[in-house]
This record gives sequence, C-alpha cells and structure tokens, in this order.
Amino acid sequence: MSEIRVGVIGYGYWGPNVVRNLFALEACEVTALSDRNPAALQRARRTYPGLHVTTDADEVLTSPDIDAVAIVTPVWTHYELARKALENGKHVFVEKPFTSTSRQAEALIELAERKKLQIMVDHTFLFTGAVKKIGELIDAGTLGPLLYFDSSRINLGLFQHDVSVIWDLAPHDLAIMDYVIRDTPEAVVATGGTHFGKHADIAFLTIYFPNNVLAHINVNWMSPVKVRTTLIGGREKMLVWNDLEVDEKIKVYDKGVTVTGAEGVYDLLVSYRSGDVWAPKVAQTEALTTELSYFLDCVAQGCTPFNDGTAGLRVVRMLEAADQSIADRGKVVPLS
Amino acid sequence: MSEIRVGVIGYGYWGPNVVRNLFALEACEVTALSDRNPAALQRARRTYPGLHVTTDADEVLTSPDIDAVAIVTPVWTHYELARKALENGKHVFVEKPFTSTSRQAEALIELAERKKLQIMVDHTFLFTGAVKKIGELIDAGTLGPLLYFDSSRINLGLFQHDVSVIWDLAPHDLAIMDYVIRDTPEAVVATGGTHFGKHADIAFLTIYFPNNVLAHINVNWMSPVKVRTTLIGGREKMLVWNDLEVDEKIKVYDKGVTVTGAEGVYDLLVSYRSGDVWAPKVAQTEALTTELSYFLDCVAQGCTPFNDGTAGLRVVRMLEAADQSIADRGKVVPLS
Amino acid sequence: MSEIRVGVIGYGYWGPNVVRNLFALEACEVTALSDRNPAALQRARRTYPGLHVTTDADEVLTSPDIDAVAIVTPVWTHYELARKALENGKHVFVEKPFTSTSRQAEALIELAERKKLQIMVDHTFLFTGAVKKIGELIDAGTLGPLLYFDSSRINLGLFQHDVSVIWDLAPHDLAIMDYVIRDTPEAVVATGGTHFGKHADIAFLTIYFPNNVLAHINVNWMSPVKVRTTLIGGREKMLVWNDLEVDEKIKVYDKGVTVTGAEGVYDLLVSYRSGDVWAPKVAQTEALTTELSYFLDCVAQGCTPFNDGTAGLRVVRMLEAADQSIADRGKVVPLS
Amino acid sequence: MSEIRVGVIGYGYWGPNVVRNLFALEACEVTALSDRNPAALQRARRTYPGLHVTTDADEVLTSPDIDAVAIVTPVWTHYELARKALENGKHVFVEKPFTSTSRQAEALIELAERKKLQIMVDHTFLFTGAVKKIGELIDAGTLGPLLYFDSSRINLGLFQHDVSVIWDLAPHDLAIMDYVIRDTPEAVVATGGTHFGKHADIAFLTIYFPNNVLAHINVNWMSPVKVRTTLIGGREKMLVWNDLEVDEKIKVYDKGVTVTGAEGVYDLLVSYRSGDVWAPKVAQTEALTTELSYFLDCVAQGCTPFNDGTAGLRVVRMLEAADQSIADRGKVVPLS
Repeated sequence: MSEIRVGVIGYGYWGPNVVRNLFALEACEVTALSDRNPAALQRARRTYPGLHVTTDADEVLTSPDIDAVAIVTPVWTHYELARKALENGKHVFVEKPFTSTSRQAEALIELAERKKLQIMVDHTFLFTGAVKKIGELIDAGTLGPLLYFDSSRINLGLFQHDVSVIWDLAPHDLAIMDYVIRDTPEAVVATGGTHFGKHADIAFLTIYFPNNVLAHINVNWMSPVKVRTTLIGGREKMLVWNDLEVDEKIKVYDKGVTVTGAEGVYDLLVSYRSGDVWAPKVAQTEALTTELSYFLDCVAQGCTPFNDGTAGLRVVRMLEAADQSIADRGKVVPLS
Repeated sequence: MSEIRVGVIGYGYWGPNVVRNLFALEACEVTALSDRNPAALQRARRTYPGLHVTTDADEVLTSPDIDAVAIVTPVWTHYELARKALENGKHVFVEKPFTSTSRQAEALIELAERKKLQIMVDHTFLFTGAVKKIGELIDAGTLGPLLYFDSSRINLGLFQHDVSVIWDLAPHDLAIMDYVIRDTPEAVVATGGTHFGKHADIAFLTIYFPNNVLAHINVNWMSPVKVRTTLIGGREKMLVWNDLEVDEKIKVYDKGVTVTGAEGVYDLLVSYRSGDVWAPKVAQTEALTTELSYFLDCVAQGCTPFNDGTAGLRVVRMLEAADQSIADRGKVVPLS
Repeated sequence: MSEIRVGVIGYGYWGPNVVRNLFALEACEVTALSDRNPAALQRARRTYPGLHVTTDADEVLTSPDIDAVAIVTPVWTHYELARKALENGKHVFVEKPFTSTSRQAEALIELAERKKLQIMVDHTFLFTGAVKKIGELIDAGTLGPLLYFDSSRINLGLFQHDVSVIWDLAPHDLAIMDYVIRDTPEAVVATGGTHFGKHADIAFLTIYFPNNVLAHINVNWMSPVKVRTTLIGGREKMLVWNDLEVDEKIKVYDKGVTVTGAEGVYDLLVSYRSGDVWAPKVAQTEALTTELSYFLDCVAQGCTPFNDGTAGLRVVRMLEAADQSIADRGKVVPLS
Repeated sequence: MSEIRVGVIGYGYWGPNVVRNLFALEACEVTALSDRNPAALQRARRTYPGLHVTTDADEVLTSPDIDAVAIVTPVWTHYELARKALENGKHVFVEKPFTSTSRQAEALIELAERKKLQIMVDHTFLFTGAVKKIGELIDAGTLGPLLYFDSSRINLGLFQHDVSVIWDLAPHDLAIMDYVIRDTPEAVVATGGTHFGKHADIAFLTIYFPNNVLAHINVNWMSPVKVRTTLIGGREKMLVWNDLEVDEKIKVYDKGVTVTGAEGVYDLLVSYRSGDVWAPKVAQTEALTTELSYFLDCVAQGCTPFNDGTAGLRVVRMLEAADQSIADRGKVVPLS
C-alpha cells in the first residue's frame, strides 16, 4: 500500500500536535484539515502553506481522496463525525474519550466491523515510555500479583464548559488502569464536588476488580499544585510513577509485606521487607508520534489496534458509571 | 491548686512519649504507671527509677493519690478504663480514637459531665505548629470560604491486628478536618481493600459537608513511599501542608478561579489567577508537650478543652460510618 | 523607521531559536540566513520556504539589504564575522561569549562606536522572568547589602571540542553575577579538572569583589544530575533561585544573622533570625523573544543596550582570568 | 578483658550523645564525667543519677580507675587534654578536628605509639550506613576509577567564635573524601569570605590528587537552605549522596562518557551513556553507636583503628593548608 491519505478534523488545543506529527510521518500524507474556527485555519495555513483547509467537516468526511480521518474535536461531536467517516469508508483515529455514551461507542464499533475499518482511540499515555515500561514490568512479573492502583491527576485546570473533571482528566487514568490491571472491573464508586458551573471540578473514583484488586483515581481542577503520580502496589514489589519527574519517572521499590501463617487466620504475622530502589531508564520519544505511526501500520496491514473502539468503550462505560455514582453522592454502580 | 497527680496506663509505642512529657511539666507529678507487659515496666523503671510501676491498671484507676489518668492503650480497652477512672473521680486523657463505638463515647461524656470531670482526647496533631497556623489562616479569612480538604497519609505501615487502616490512620485526618472545616458533616462514603488479614489496609473516605464543601482522606498501609500531604482549597487562596517537609511545611498559594457572570448560568466565564506563594514560619515545639500542658491547665481551672469527649465522639461517628460504608463497597452513609 | 532587516549567520543548536523568534517579531524582517552546513540550510528552508539561504556568510555580511546581523556561531568565529558586519555598517547581535579574547572585544567595541552601530551580546538569561525579578528585588533593597553569590550549573554535558566547560557554561553565571552584584570584580581564582580531551570538564570559580562580596561558580559537564541553582545572600534576606523548578523558581528567605556588639570585637554576639519564605510570581515569557525585541528597539532608537559589547567584554575578561588561574591550579589572578 | 572504664570530658553539644551511647554499650562502664560548666553537670546528673561528675578534668585524666578518655571539648583544648590522658596511660577518643595544628597531632601520635595506646578521632560520618555503602561500592569497583568528589555542606549555621566555617564543617567532608579517594592529596586551594567577626563564614576548597582526581568542598554558615550533598564521579558510574533524604540517600547513576579515539587526540569522539538509576538500601543504625563500639573493640584487642591519629592528622594538614590558602585569597598550597 502506498501513503495513507489522512484528513484531520479539529485544530484547537490538541489538533496542531496531531497535524505536526502526521506531517513528520512518511507513511502518510495529510490531505485536508477542517475546523469551524477560521482563525484556527489561518494559523494552520501559515505553518503548512500547501495544506487544504476548510470550515466544512463534511468535505473531509466525504472526500474520495482520504483513507482515514483523525477526529480531534470535543467529545459530544465524536459520534456524528466518526459515524459519517466510517459510512464513507474511512478509518478513524478519535480523540479520547471515545464517545459521550456507551451506546454510541457500541454503534461505532459495530459499524466499523461491518465496514472492515479500524477505529483507534487516542489514549496517548499508553504510548509513553513510562506506561510501556510499566507494562513490561508487569508482563515480566516483577511486581507480582497486583494489589492496587492509585492515581492523582490534579492541578489548577482548564475549566471545561461541556464536561466534568471526570470526563476531562480521568480517561487518561482509566485507560492506563485498563492497560495495567488487565481484568474486568466489577463496580465504580465516584464522589466529588461542584463549586463553579454545573459540572464536578473535583472527583474521586474507586473501581473494584476481582480478587480484591482496587483502583482509585483523584482528579481535581482546583488544586494549587500540579500532581501526576500513580502508585501501583504488587505483592512482590511496588512502583511509583511520577510523570512530572524529568529523569526518574518510574521507581520500583523492593518493598512489601511478608505474611507468615495462613491468610485469614487471626494471628497471622505480617512483617515488612524494605530493600533497594530502582529507576529503570524510560524512553523519551514523543508518545503521539509512536501512536500515529502505529495507527498507520494498523490501517496498512488491516490489523486491530489494542487501543481500538472496544478499549475506548471500556473507558466510556466507567465514565458513565462514575457519572451515575457521583449524581447520588457515591452510590455503588455495578459494571455488568 | 498544687501539682496535679497523674497516673499513666500503657507503656507501649506512645506511652513513653506521654510519660517523658509529663515528667518534664512542672504542673504535674507522675505518681504511677501500669502496663500488662513486665518488660515495658522494666524499661520504664530504668529511665525513671523513682516511679511506681505495676501490672495492675486497677491500682492506678482506684488510687486515692491520683487526680488524672492518661490512658495510652489499644482502642478496645479505652471504654472500660476510662469509665473506671471517671467513676473513681479522675480526669481522663485518652489516646485516639476515643472509643470503639459512639455509644461508648456518649456514655463516657455523660458520666464525665455528671462527675464534673474533664475528658481530653489525644488528637496530638491539633497542637502542632502546622495545624495551629492553618487554623489561624482560616480564622483570619486568608483562604476565603473553603471548597475542599484532601489529605493523604500513606506508607508501608505497621499492620494492626485489631483495627483497619481507617481506625489506625484516619483519626488524625478526621480530627484535623473537624478542626479546619468547622461544620457538621452530612454523609460518609468509604471504599477500600483488604489484602492481608481481615481488616482494610487501604481506604478512601469522602465526607460531605453543607454548601458543597467536601473532604477526602486517602489512608494506605501498603504504599512504598511515605506521604503526609493535605490540600485545602479556598475561594481566595489555596494551601498545601506537607508534614514531611522540615522547613516549609505550609505553603499558601495566591491561586484561584474568578467567575464572571452569574453562577449556574451556562456561559459563565471562569478565569485563572496565579500569584505569589508564601510559606509562613511554623513553630517547631513538640505538640504533645503543648497538649499535655493544656490538659493540666483545663483540669486545674475546670474548663472544657476544645478536644474534649465531644470532639472525640465526632471522630468516632465518622469512623463508624466509614466502617458501615466500606462493608458495602462504598454505600453512602448519612450522618444524622 | 520601518522594519529592520536582519540577516542570521549560523543555524546549528541555538540559531533556529533566533530565527523563529525574529520571524515572530513584527518590527523586523528576516532577509537571509547563512550556514556552512547544507543540511542545516535544508531544514531551515522546509520551515521557512521564502527565506533566502546561503552557505556563504559574506553574502549576509555585505548585503546592502540588511541592517543588522545575528551571529549564532562558535565563539572563535565571532570576531571576524562581527568585524566584517560592523565594517559593512550593520548592527550586531552576537552569541555569548562575546569573543575569544578581550582584545577582540575591545576592538569590536571601538569599531562599533566609530561606526555608531549597536552591539548586543546574547546573555539570554538576563531577559528571563527569574533574573528580572531578582534584579527588582535587589533594586528595591529587599535583600539588603549583598554578601555572596553562589551558582551551580552542572549536568552530563555536551562536550565541546573547542572550549572548556568554563567558556561553555560559566558565561551564563558570570553575566547574571555581573547584573546582580553591580560592582567591579577584583580577582579570580579558578580550579578544575580535565578528564577527557584537553579542556577542563569541571571547574570552580571564585570571584572577589570589594567589601568582602564573593561569588562562586560551579560548572561541571560530568555530573549525573542536572542542577541550576543560585544562592544570593544578603544582610537582610537571602534568595535561592532554582531554575529547574517550574512554579517556584525564586524563593526569598526572611533569614539572616543579627550581630550585637561592634563588628571586629572578639565577643560579638551573633544570633539567627528565621521567618517566612516567599516565592514571588515569575513571568513565564520566552526570554529570547524579549531580548530580540529589545535589540530591535535599541537599533531603531539608536540607544545602547545594557547587555552591549562592554557587558560582553566584562564577561570575557573574567573568562580569560579564569583560564590563566586554572592553568596554574588556582593562582589568584587580579582583574585590573 | 573485662569492661573498659571510660571517662568523658565535655558535656556540651555532642558530649551527651557520647555519654548516652557509652551507657548503652555493654563493653564499657562510664565512670566519670567532667565539664567546666556546673549547669551541664546538673543536666547529666538528672539523667544518670549514679554517675560521678566533676568540674575538674584532671580528676578524670589522672584517675587510676579509668582506661580510656573521651574528649568532647573545643578543638583548642584537645592537645593538652589528650596529652595528659596519654601520659596517664589512657586510650583517647577525641572529637574532630583532632588538634589545632599538625605539630600537635604529630606529638600525640608519637606519644601514643610510645605508650602503646590507641587514639581514635571521632569522624562519625565514616560509620554511617551511607558512607559505608559508598566505600563498598568503591571497593567493588562499581564506579570505576574516580574522577571527582564534590561536596556541599551549607546552612544557616551556628557561628563559632573560635574557628572558621572551614574548621567547623569541612572536617566532615575531608574525612569522607580521605576515606573515599584513598590517595595522597597534592595541593589545596581555598577561597572564601568573612562577613561577621574575624573568621570565614563561607569557604570553597579544592583539593588536587594525582591522576587528575579532584575534590571540591563548599561550606557555608550563611545559606538560607540546608544542603548535604556529595557527588562522586567515576569513569563507570556516578553517585549522588543526599544525606537529607530519609529513604534514598544514595543514588547510583549508570551514566557516563564513552571516549572513542585515543585520548589527547583533538578529534576524540565523546558520547554519552545514560541508563538506570539505583538506590541501594542504606543501614539506618546510629553511627556513633557503631563507632564507639569499634573504639572499645580496638582498645580491648590492641589494634589500631582506621580512624586513628594518623587519619586525624591528614585532615588537620588539609585544614592548615586551607587556612594558609584562604589568607592569600586562594594561593595554591602544596601538601608535601
């Protein structure tokens, strides 16, 4: 197959990064860009003089010269744009979260299957050196069976008018959690607060997995300090990922608990083990470059990406459950 | 009034600190110490050759030469020991959490009132320079109306056989929260996990207050790193207290959100304000010294401490609610 | 005056930043770029399709359509290029360090004066929010009379073939020191080590000023960790600038020493004062943008920049003295 | 041999730690304590009711019931006290720095040899888990041949009336450097400043060793922040020891430089290697306990400690050279 011809919809906050990376990849040609905002298009034209730009997304969605569409717009527009792209025979790369509802996600997955087209949901973090390294450590059994996953993603944030802090920030953590824990969640509990506007600006999610595995996610738009820290506790070793560290993002702690005596017995003896700490080298390449290159590969070779529509759907289901839970101050919402 | 004669029950982990501080205070005389463990008593005798020690707590509780008793034993023993002390006309200084149940706490409060005796619950953190400074900042209106309180108290912990991580660590945060928020909580949601033995070793509490004020507490015995951080968000300023910092424990951030347009309106404009950061000097004196000195003052002058039985009861009620909630994976438990 | 026409010489490591910033400034037009490396020119052409590029610097230096030249090449080329530019009536913006010798610097200054042209030496750090804020604090007398300046600039560095770590890294610190201390240095002592090649890769400079004011600079290409920290001690307050901090680059400590009794007396009493810490907000704009805009202003209005050739010469003199000192393992070299 | 009977002279800042540790060691008996300050003696009597205390050091120095004397007094008193102790047949444990001059040190060493007595100089840091671990890593060749040692020991300090910051703080670094580098220094350069009283309060030492190995020590009583950091660069790996870290005091960086082509050749290629980081577990026992126990062993078994008078003399010689150097603003002072 020759170069894949990609059209991009959306040139707001994240779109310029997608366009810049696509331009740098030899496996593709960027053929058109649409945005409803003429000022955005003018910025794009200055940087990419030859690029065809338009305010009409339909031009991109229906063009016969386009093989794949990258949708980099607000979540409430994803379903309509992706549906049209698929119906017009185009592969879809779509910003996270995948869709506004799980029904929309299911419909798109079904449509793509029928049309034999690929969907990739842009869970960029899964392509960072840090998350890849965590995946390798878990695959290698370094941490042992997992106990918990506890992530904080807080800062004085860009308030969104259309979504809560859960839909804005938690998709990152949920996608990473999904990638790391590799099991089917059982239930979600979400608590939080709304101080400005009508959407929660601070929220805490607990996700229950089988075998007492537990995840917790703290997202907050109202924090004076920026924190991007994930703790992963395993029976053998424990890991801390601080994404704000430049050089030692991941630390593996040879620490843990040794239980003597049968578990469940009242008088079990618990003792502590504390050894060396190790910061494995983490690749510094730009995650979006790796991800888009993988997207082009999947399209060219007709194989399903691991961050496909189904992966996107899993995250949307948890977001929906969190919404349901927080609306009732933390009701336990089972995930069937 | 002359020197107050104090008896101490319990010389395990915390007891030696109580005894050492009482010995240093001129307003009191330590007249007896009991512990069921003869080895503990021997350690005490080496350090305080003149001190009367006994394995029989009743000796302390009934001695006519004792005005006040410090109870520094596991929580499940507090009620019986405190009841006996009060019945024998002695003031009580009791380790946190106050009691195992709110009914026990209520009974002790009622008994103390009837006998005109003082109860002080040892919420030591309320006497640290850091918490006092936070209280002053809130009193002065520096932070403006509060939005949230978010505290993490995690480390590879001393597993307790008789209580969960909630009853072990969260009393600190609940007492501090109670002191800082100064309002009546409406409901508690607790989630968590049990990986060893039968008690939760990791737990997340959300406490709802009126006016959308929210508290969150993260306690964890299974963390490879020690964290002691509390974020307090106010409408005017925000504060971070990192108790592991030696020199700049408290930082006040001149950061926040400015809302233009009526709240609730869809198109409200939210803009960010980011200014200087300020680390006020925090007194470095030992909190327990200040607290015990205050206890002796309250006893001598017959006034009720702010950390009295009622304050202890408020914490116990939240602990009970958390237990109820976590047993059902995060059920919302209202606090009447 | 209309747009100033600028030619750029050098498109290696720093050149692209200069070109990008000049393109963004409305007060100027970038008319030509030269570099001896055709690959560099090709990179430039891709980004700036309309820009005239050439491998022949003389084209830029002699073009009648150019008002000012930015010289962004290795230091050993500065003198010849700047001389030719000035002789051809062009203003000069030149990379730090200004020249390889103080005689070269003096000759260029004299030539520019004669031709009534401006020279600006690119001491970029002087245009950062952090250094500007430090300057304001010193102007306002916040720190009181200065006692010392102690700077560390260390990391696993890009080894230079043509210069030592002193000429590579210390010009930053010397320019900042010159800006902050505002006095004439008396002597330089430099020690250091050479472990690879023939130039020092680790060096320590002490610069003596009148009134017991002292500066120390630690530069190291062989450090496993990156450090960019400057301590400035004043009699009233002390300041730490950590340039690697994102949010609180500058901290002002209300700490110091109070001397009771006449100084010099044996039994003087020295006591310590320790108060609040304060992190003033620091502007986050790109320093090079501000600096180049200032350069264009100076050219347009015919005024001498504060970072002119004379400022560049002061730094070169200290570098020469450091070379002399380190060659003899730390001989004291007076600055006349 | 039965219990060693130890007398202690000096109960000021460090003396109480020596006494407390000696009391805890079974191999010795503390038989007497002297201090010229009656208030200090009273404090000691309260804690150790049975201990014989006196204001007359001679009582301790001449007592027939004492085998060894610990001298924990200001440096200018060390020589006279140690001489008398040795002349009276007592082993000597003496605070650092060993003596005020190298001649005094030489005289004491000669006297101890003649009398077949042990001298141990209290370079406590050599007995910390951190320094022991560094020694093990160097012994194991982990770092490869050393390149440099760079240590900072700065804070708002306790001004000493009788000595400069060099004699107060640098003995720690010089003893550690001596232990780590294991070679004979060639020359010392010291620069610094005097802002209060007559002794330097800020100083920078460079110590030259054979084979281009270099040490640098930054000591400062006038720093608003406390820093205790040592960088050790080796050809294979590099190490950072941050003594203020609680959990990860030592980090070993798999970083370095690879040189291709013969060294000294102009066109040598230098490339960078950057791999994992590793924080080995460091023992947390109190260094002084280990050191005093080792002292008692050496006395009992008649063997010479590695931190003997000769080790103390090496440090004193460097301090003398530093004094000579700083007096002339950084003159190079050879160590014969």
